[in-house]
Amino acid sequence: MLRVAVIGAGRIGKVHAQTVASHPQAELVAVCDPIGTAAEDLAARFGAKAYKDADALFADADVDAVIIGSPTAAHAPQVLGATRAGKAVLVEKPVAKDVEEARALEAELATFDHPPVMVGFQRRYDPSIRRAKELADAGELGDIEQVVIVARDPQPPSAEYVAGSGGLFKDMTIHDFDEARFFIGDIVEVSAFGQNVLPELKGTGDFDAAFVLLRGKDGAVASITNNRRCVTGYDQRLEVHGSKGSVSMDNWRETTLSVNTAETSGVQQPYLNFFLQRYADAYRDELTAFIDAINNGTEVSPTVADGVAALVVAQAAEESAHSGRTVRLDA
Amino acid sequence: MLRVAVIGAGRIGKVHAQTVASHPQAELVAVCDPIGTAAEDLAARFGAKAYKDADALFADADVDAVIIGSPTAAHAPQVLGATRAGKAVLVEKPVAKDVEEARALEAELATFDHPPVMVGFQRRYDPSIRRAKELADAGELGDIEQVVIVARDPQPPSAEYVAGSGGLFKDMTIHDFDEARFFIGDIVEVSAFGQNVLPELKGTGDFDAAFVLLRGKDGAVASITNNRRCVTGYDQRLEVHGSKGSVSMDNWRETTLSVNTAETSGVQQPYLNFFLQRYADAYRDELTAFIDAINNGTEVSPTVADGVAALVVAQAAEESAHSGRTVRLDA
Amino acid sequence: MLRVAVIGAGRIGKVHAQTVASHPQAELVAVCDPIGTAAEDLAARFGAKAYKDADALFADADVDAVIIGSPTAAHAPQVLGATRAGKAVLVEKPVAKDVEEARALEAELATFDHPPVMVGFQRRYDPSIRRAKELADAGELGDIEQVVIVARDPQPPSAEYVAGSGGLFKDMTIHDFDEARFFIGDIVEVSAFGQNVLPELKGTGDFDAAFVLLRGKDGAVASITNNRRCVTGYDQRLEVHGSKGSVSMDNWRETTLSVNTAETSGVQQPYLNFFLQRYADAYRDELTAFIDAINNGTEVSPTVADGVAALVVAQAAEESAHSGRTVRLDA
Amino acid sequence: MLRVAVIGAGRIGKVHAQTVASHPQAELVAVCDPIGTAAEDLAARFGAKAYKDADALFADADVDAVIIGSPTAAHAPQVLGATRAGKAVLVEKPVAKDVEEARALEAELATFDHPPVMVGFQRRYDPSIRRAKELADAGELGDIEQVVIVARDPQPPSAEYVAGSGGLFKDMTIHDFDEARFFIGDIVEVSAFGQNVLPELKGTGDFDAAFVLLRGKDGAVASITNNRRCVTGYDQRLEVHGSKGSVSMDNWRETTLSVNTAETSGVQQPYLNFFLQRYADAYRDELTAFIDAINNGTEVSPTVADGVAALVVAQAAEESAHSGRTVRLDA
Repeated sequence: MLRVAVIGAGRIGKVHAQTVASHPQAELVAVCDPIGTAAEDLAARFGAKAYKDADALFADADVDAVIIGSPTAAHAPQVLGATRAGKAVLVEKPVAKDVEEARALEAELATFDHPPVMVGFQRRYDPSIRRAKELADAGELGDIEQVVIVARDPQPPSAEYVAGSGGLFKDMTIHDFDEARFFIGDIVEVSAFGQNVLPELKGTGDFDAAFVLLRGKDGAVASITNNRRCVTGYDQRLEVHGSKGSVSMDNWRETTLSVNTAETSGVQQPYLNFFLQRYADAYRDELTAFIDAINNGTEVSPTVADGVAALVVAQAAEESAHSGRTVRLDA
Repeated sequence: MLRVAVIGAGRIGKVHAQTVASHPQAELVAVCDPIGTAAEDLAARFGAKAYKDADALFADADVDAVIIGSPTAAHAPQVLGATRAGKAVLVEKPVAKDVEEARALEAELATFDHPPVMVGFQRRYDPSIRRAKELADAGELGDIEQVVIVARDPQPPSAEYVAGSGGLFKDMTIHDFDEARFFIGDIVEVSAFGQNVLPELKGTGDFDAAFVLLRGKDGAVASITNNRRCVTGYDQRLEVHGSKGSVSMDNWRETTLSVNTAETSGVQQPYLNFFLQRYADAYRDELTAFIDAINNGTEVSPTVADGVAALVVAQAAEESAHSGRTVRLDA
Repeated sequence: MLRVAVIGAGRIGKVHAQTVASHPQAELVAVCDPIGTAAEDLAARFGAKAYKDADALFADADVDAVIIGSPTAAHAPQVLGATRAGKAVLVEKPVAKDVEEARALEAELATFDHPPVMVGFQRRYDPSIRRAKELADAGELGDIEQVVIVARDPQPPSAEYVAGSGGLFKDMTIHDFDEARFFIGDIVEVSAFGQNVLPELKGTGDFDAAFVLLRGKDGAVASITNNRRCVTGYDQRLEVHGSKGSVSMDNWRETTLSVNTAETSGVQQPYLNFFLQRYADAYRDELTAFIDAINNGTEVSPTVADGVAALVVAQAAEESAHSGRTVRLDA
Repeated sequence: MLRVAVIGAGRIGKVHAQTVASHPQAELVAVCDPIGTAAEDLAARFGAKAYKDADALFADADVDAVIIGSPTAAHAPQVLGATRAGKAVLVEKPVAKDVEEARALEAELATFDHPPVMVGFQRRYDPSIRRAKELADAGELGDIEQVVIVARDPQPPSAEYVAGSGGLFKDMTIHDFDEARFFIGDIVEVSAFGQNVLPELKGTGDFDAAFVLLRGKDGAVASITNNRRCVTGYDQRLEVHGSKGSVSMDNWRETTLSVNTAETSGVQQPYLNFFLQRYADAYRDELTAFIDAINNGTEVSPTVADGVAALVVAQAAEESAHSGRTVRLDA
């Protein structure tokens, strides 16, 4: 049993704590949060230790691995702290607060031996997306030419959250950037349109919706449609078009029931409401892959380099949305 | 161009007249109806001759083929009249008013040479049902084991129509009996449950909904669900289950649009409202097959024998619904 | 935390043990199986006690409730043993080996005070079926007129299992009988066609596929299509048709991905393979309802009377399949 | 009956000739093509007159309206020739060979009285797209925020065709530009990525695939995904997302059949192969609207101004694809 600690007792920390606790190969041994009571409450639910201070946690010899779900600003220092203490790390996205810090982290990690460090782009482990990738890798779709990603959140976060989020592209679209890279490889061109559709977020100075075009190094192009609000639920779709075929991922609902009346037919329930439901399997399989990397030396995916690359694209999208120019990146 | 006359200027006669008029290999030359003005109105629309009397029509040397869409009682005599005059015949279902008359017709037709006689079970020419049959015949489904047919009309006919219809099984289910035979062959056992769900048809003494089980000579079984009323439109579905796979036919809608709101997702329009829309392609392809049989000697399907067989099953279903016994038929 | 023991360490026992162990309001405290090593292995996995003997289990004061997943012949005696010892009971279907024993059990249970006894027709707790029922009860569908149930297993059980199963109707269709009763109430007429489609089960003397028609006391009719083998997976579908609308339940797949190539479009994966996957949520919610009945006195559903009624229908179906007569039951 | 002539006996001319001939309110009276035999062959099929010379056609007093399906370079002169002769005009897209010629045409048409001139963006009359528009206009979707259009042709045209097509954006995407304008209004920003995915078209100097982002004057954004080749058929999809809901248009297939086997489920046929099948209803309803505009003075849609606007967007897309800059347009 891998002994795992979770840093951050907020929304994503709870997801990871729950996922660890119910995983057959892992055990939740500690929870860490600067708000001590939050750590204690979450730890108590699973019979784990509570820490207020991450450094104290890193010194705990009974911890094998750390999942970092703290605010973005803490990611890079905690990755270094944990790895220097010999802990494996699964760090939530974005891997650092900006490209510079991310690159510095990547460089620093290259200077010493450390256990696996994995970045939490959990979609790579979603059964539908993973199967799309398997079909693509197996050549079933031929050469990948075009990718269409639609990712729309059910409700917008608070204006406070948005103001501190680092911006739509780093906070939300970054998952889509990694998803696009998963299918079309390194990105060489980025063009973005930002939108403001939600009055309650007007004051934040951030976009609340956006379209992004990405060109991959081999010529494939991906489009991303984002929106902070989708009234029908968490709208997560993907199309991958190749020279021999395409795949398309639909949304999940809570039931497979459809209703037919005099006015309409095929009426289904809204999409699953949010990422905890939608990606529950992905979080579990991400953890399994993390454990495999630690125990069996299997390859880490996504890597810190993937995390850096997604941040680079996010920064380019932001630049493009403001300048009205396509931003070119070195592949 | 095949010169075609249509007998009956009612609902189904109009369907055939329209189908003939727009078919590239056929020409509508005459319409016949005892209500002379009905014949004249329909004939005028397509520049055809009008007849009140079927015998006069049969004597018309400019007519190659006759489509009989008159009331059931006239079917058998008109088939004989037309064939004796050397006209090919496409006769609407049921082929005769009861099994005895149908068998007499079949016997009589065997006594002289005549052009093709085809029975109007148009579903055999529906693109979806035909493709299901092709897959079954090609062995793609393995041995056919189970068939599930759901056939529900959008609105019930008038009580007057029902009273003179010959009963639900001969009037409506007969299409399903032919469809079942199309997939599982000759029927050896019939069990039926009748229902009365529509208050306005209570006085007719007829069922307005029913379930029928049919066992084919090779052991496959089909179930049929019928209802004179389906508020969402014309509900026409089919499942064919074999040892290696199954096929399932869904309903058509007018558009492929679906709507998603805060309450629901995937909301489509009602099913196409009725058989004219739903089976427009089937009527066209049925006519093509009829023309092929006349011009090129291709095999007729369905035959008068198929028409007789469907009537035999209808009669058995009626008997079973009243007696509570499974009726056995000679294969 | 409700302290739960599971009797039976076979397939269904493992499902319940796992469900209990991961339920937030329950704790698995014991496993009982006459094959002691089976009990020990399963118990060890969850840190529970192991019993060979059910009576010894019933004497254990640390057990609040018992889930009975033993062979059918043991159900009735164990229900009585457990309830007499003051344990709440969730008993797998069928509630007893035949109608007589089931009625005797029901009568005996009426003679003394005991905690809740619930029967394991878990489909009532499936989110799709439950939502269909809610819509029906809310009047959204109008008067319920027709129900179409298709239930097909992915692979047949062994001939040995079938020989000792009590027959298709009691072993497999019984879930469909309860599902039909859930929507159309008490059954007053039963007609069944049995089939033999699997050569490997020919020697068992049992049907391996069947169609059943059921008429409910208010006139609604249900059809059931069963097959011991469906190559595409576990085929579990339901249609409920009412005067104002209908609902239709589709199968689940592992992903929402569909593939499009030059030959085909919309290609999805097979259905979930079997009941453990398909009804995982139903088993969890069934357990929640059981706990609620124990803790909060909420109404038990389905009851022992429901279990008896399903057996009565199963017996009538068997009789009908052999006699070719519709069997009438007292409502 | 409106007396209609068709100019151009090529692919699109044949579509219009067939549509006119089978329309209950129209009559095909003439076909015109500089290749006299082409005109004669097509005319003969429908009993119409044949012209080699458009001016001769315009002088024919028995012609009420002209449908122009000639090569692009002829469009503008023929619109003027026909309208000056008092004929109503339905002209295929693009309305002229470039923006300058289109604007000159628009200006010239403003200088004299003439019958209706309509531009052949037939998608506005597709039942699914039209219903999406009705729902949007009725406020059912709230404020329109985002539109996603996917339009992929089944097979690429020849390199010769492409070389003379005016480029992907004017030849193919122009339909999508009109479709986007239909939902988000006048376009103020355009950004495009061109692609070359088809080796056989490399030499043409034209893109064979593209992504375009369009911002409408009210802030809504549309993305367009184009490809000259989609192996599964003619891929025509649309999503319209608003603050209160969204609509999604799926592809049509020839049947509603799906196939389920041990490996897969839900297998449907490819999409309808091309625009003749896919938009047959749209061409018919477009003609009906054209007739209504002539006979009853109903408003023309789309107008020449719409045709000009689509060309402006096409030109901007071309510019953006080459410059890597977002092109801003005056609303």
